[in-house]
Amino acid sequence: MTWHLALSVDRESRVPLAVQVRDSLRRLIEEGALRPATRIPSSRQLAADLAVSRSVVVEAYEQLSAEGYLATRRGSGTTVAECAQPAAAVGSALTLVDHEPAEAAWDLRTGTSNVQAFPRQEWIRCVTAALNDAGRQDLGYSPPAGVPVTRQLLAGYLGRVRGVRTRPEDVMVTSGFAQGLALLCRVLRDRGHRTLAVEDPGHPGEWEFIASAGLVPVGIPVDADGLRVDLLEASGARAVLTTPGHHFPTGARLSQARRERLIAWARAVDGYLIEDDYDNAYLRRTGQLPALQSLAPDRVVYAGSASKVLAPALRLGWLATPSELMASVEHVRAGWDIGCSGLEQLAFARFIDSGALDRHQRRLRAEFHKRREVVREQTALHLPGARLLGGEGGLQAYLQLPDGIDEEALVRAARSRSVLVRGGRFYTLTDTTRPPALVVSYATVGCAGLARSLAEIGTAYRELLR
Amino acid sequence: MTWHLALSVDRESRVPLAVQVRDSLRRLIEEGALRPATRIPSSRQLAADLAVSRSVVVEAYEQLSAEGYLATRRGSGTTVAECAQPAAAVGSALTLVDHEPAEAAWDLRTGTSNVQAFPRQEWIRCVTAALNDAGRQDLGYSPPAGVPVTRQLLAGYLGRVRGVRTRPEDVMVTSGFAQGLALLCRVLRDRGHRTLAVEDPGHPGEWEFIASAGLVPVGIPVDADGLRVDLLEASGARAVLTTPGHHFPTGARLSQARRERLIAWARAVDGYLIEDDYDNAYLRRTGQLPALQSLAPDRVVYAGSASKVLAPALRLGWLATPSELMASVEHVRAGWDIGCSGLEQLAFARFIDSGALDRHQRRLRAEFHKRREVVREQTALHLPGARLLGGEGGLQAYLQLPDGIDEEALVRAARSRSVLVRGGRFYTLTDTTRPPALVVSYATVGCAGLARSLAEIGTAYRELLR
Repeated sequence: MTWHLALSVDRESRVPLAVQVRDSLRRLIEEGALRPATRIPSSRQLAADLAVSRSVVVEAYEQLSAEGYLATRRGSGTTVAECAQPAAAVGSALTLVDHEPAEAAWDLRTGTSNVQAFPRQEWIRCVTAALNDAGRQDLGYSPPAGVPVTRQLLAGYLGRVRGVRTRPEDVMVTSGFAQGLALLCRVLRDRGHRTLAVEDPGHPGEWEFIASAGLVPVGIPVDADGLRVDLLEASGARAVLTTPGHHFPTGARLSQARRERLIAWARAVDGYLIEDDYDNAYLRRTGQLPALQSLAPDRVVYAGSASKVLAPALRLGWLATPSELMASVEHVRAGWDIGCSGLEQLAFARFIDSGALDRHQRRLRAEFHKRREVVREQTALHLPGARLLGGEGGLQAYLQLPDGIDEEALVRAARSRSVLVRGGRFYTLTDTTRPPALVVSYATVGCAGLARSLAEIGTAYRELLR
Repeated sequence: MTWHLALSVDRESRVPLAVQVRDSLRRLIEEGALRPATRIPSSRQLAADLAVSRSVVVEAYEQLSAEGYLATRRGSGTTVAECAQPAAAVGSALTLVDHEPAEAAWDLRTGTSNVQAFPRQEWIRCVTAALNDAGRQDLGYSPPAGVPVTRQLLAGYLGRVRGVRTRPEDVMVTSGFAQGLALLCRVLRDRGHRTLAVEDPGHPGEWEFIASAGLVPVGIPVDADGLRVDLLEASGARAVLTTPGHHFPTGARLSQARRERLIAWARAVDGYLIEDDYDNAYLRRTGQLPALQSLAPDRVVYAGSASKVLAPALRLGWLATPSELMASVEHVRAGWDIGCSGLEQLAFARFIDSGALDRHQRRLRAEFHKRREVVREQTALHLPGARLLGGEGGLQAYLQLPDGIDEEALVRAARSRSVLVRGGRFYTLTDTTRPPALVVSYATVGCAGLARSLAEIGTAYRELLR
């Protein structure tokens, strides 16, 4: 069955093909040319008609489906939605993904993962094996804290890779990092906490999330040695959410001296440290410090997730909590849900145990290091006066700019050149003393795209310097 | 590699083989004969050595793993756990699964699903297809309320199968029924509710869950026409959790007159009805009433899950809420997590859309109807004076007993005959006026097992009558 659709693309344009297809289709629908329930060509067919790659059309269709313009029915194909009105996207603050249309060619904003690299076939193998081997108990209810074998493997894995000192009983599998943070906020509130210290600059979505969980986020400045523990001591908070391995977004690593002082502080105030080890997979393996948790398993909650190493869609995260805290976390959890999907937990256990996780991370680490080198070279080439802060690795580069630069004007100028990027101010809670900066995520843009987009930013930068 | 293990089974014994294997192994470990980290045979090998079916050994190993006695390491096989101490099982009240060792041959307790029937190959096909087709957006973050295509298919499916009148925007995919109930309790509490009316008899795990969510469960008696709406009116509650299609556990169906009165009540008190449609898949299709929700989509929250039709391990549930309530539910959810696994939601969408869900339910429905007939026949044969209450279908039979019978003595006597079953009192909140009863779940025991176990109960019953 072939369905004809009057549509064309402009190959000379700088607007990406997928954006052209999407916008043309949306216009046809909005103008009423394409009526509700109208059958449109399959992505394969339209791609052939337009002589573009199929992924171009798939991307356009996906976005229009998400926006409510198209309905994809397996078996009966893709149609214009019955009620082709864009639904208001109700997102979560924590995802840090803007819901504005991505009109740009390159997206250098943080908050995305390199999901193109998702190891589909290996994951399918793990799901298949887990399900074929699943016994009656595996298919039934598991403890809300997680499937035993998964907790056991996670405990071993975190110990091996990050020096985390924990037991399976103190590991909880959570619905992503988000649920872990929500559980901890609730436990802290139940224990009389009113505030939670956070790093400034840091993750604005997390501050919003913490506030909605009933705690006031209190910003603590960060310098080249990481969190300013001296200012934390003066803050009155008794718990802090921190990224000691690789500060988000500046890349600073918490110094050994500050680690010790931080733990002393936690003991002195009878408080807790929440260690968000979000990007450890992408830090250089040599010279790395073990997790902060290893210094004080009784005071540090270690938190991680599969979102940055596999895909956010899995919604798999984990906590390794002080034993004394675990019962409280489990108690709150038991009032919210009965745990995450057991089948995915079993698949993830196989993914760890077969070595697939290590292999996948090694591959991505090599790729991200290449990308970071491109950012370094291109910054030196196109942004004279800019400094790349922080250590090696990670998923984003923090480019500190000369004092005179108008950061917001630069962000706007980059956007007009089809590059989406955020300025340092976006990540600021209250500390406005930092020099202007750009935060460049290279999670989703490859080396060539990075070179081109940084050249575009460089052109905008030089125009602003004039 | 073969590993020898000194173990034997007694084929003459009434103790099931899996229980024998499990208990012998546990004893060897507890006595120190099997030391931590000792490698034991694969389930395949031990099954061959003992000349039993492999599932016998798999079941024993699984339970010992869950109890912390064994560690199963893919690649290096099964070993005695390093620290072979039974971990305290932290369960959820809502699962209604006892964590006592199932020493019995037959388990007729409610709260389990027929996971043996889980359509593994069809589910694997759906997961594989979903993952192979997943675009960048599918692998990233979805709205916390659920993947758009899944919500759309659920809205269509619930309308087709149960007459539910809803829109995709008002459907939320939840982590099982449990999370849906937790979210609703929280929203009700935020709106000033202090109590939630529940059916009595009903589901004790739910009462506990509701209490932990901060609402007081208030029991409303049930008769042959379902919930006593007149008593609900007098209760002071402004919301009720109800099973109108097939009351749990008595099987009563809410009459048409009471449905109308119930909705009038909800409007009068500006309240809400939560319709738990837990077993509609297994009710006879002829003469069924549509969901209560269809009479008042502005007052009824419809709730369902995949736990009874596929497997609890999936943790997939759904709510169809009044539009006016949806924003509040989404607001609470956004502070708890960022939704369920997108990959499983996409797989479930395919499972619905391909017709696999309908086919699977039809198969199970036929099987459960056969089992119910066996219960009916065997009850007439072995339990003179007992009455099977309720309509056709479902997952459990409510056997009302003559007044003179000591229900608890019967439950104990059944257990001594290797049958686990619960009495009506187990499901009672405050209404102690009901005659004695047994609640027989046939979700996990086949026709032959039902015949044998009911004969055992009958022997115990006749001894008590003497």
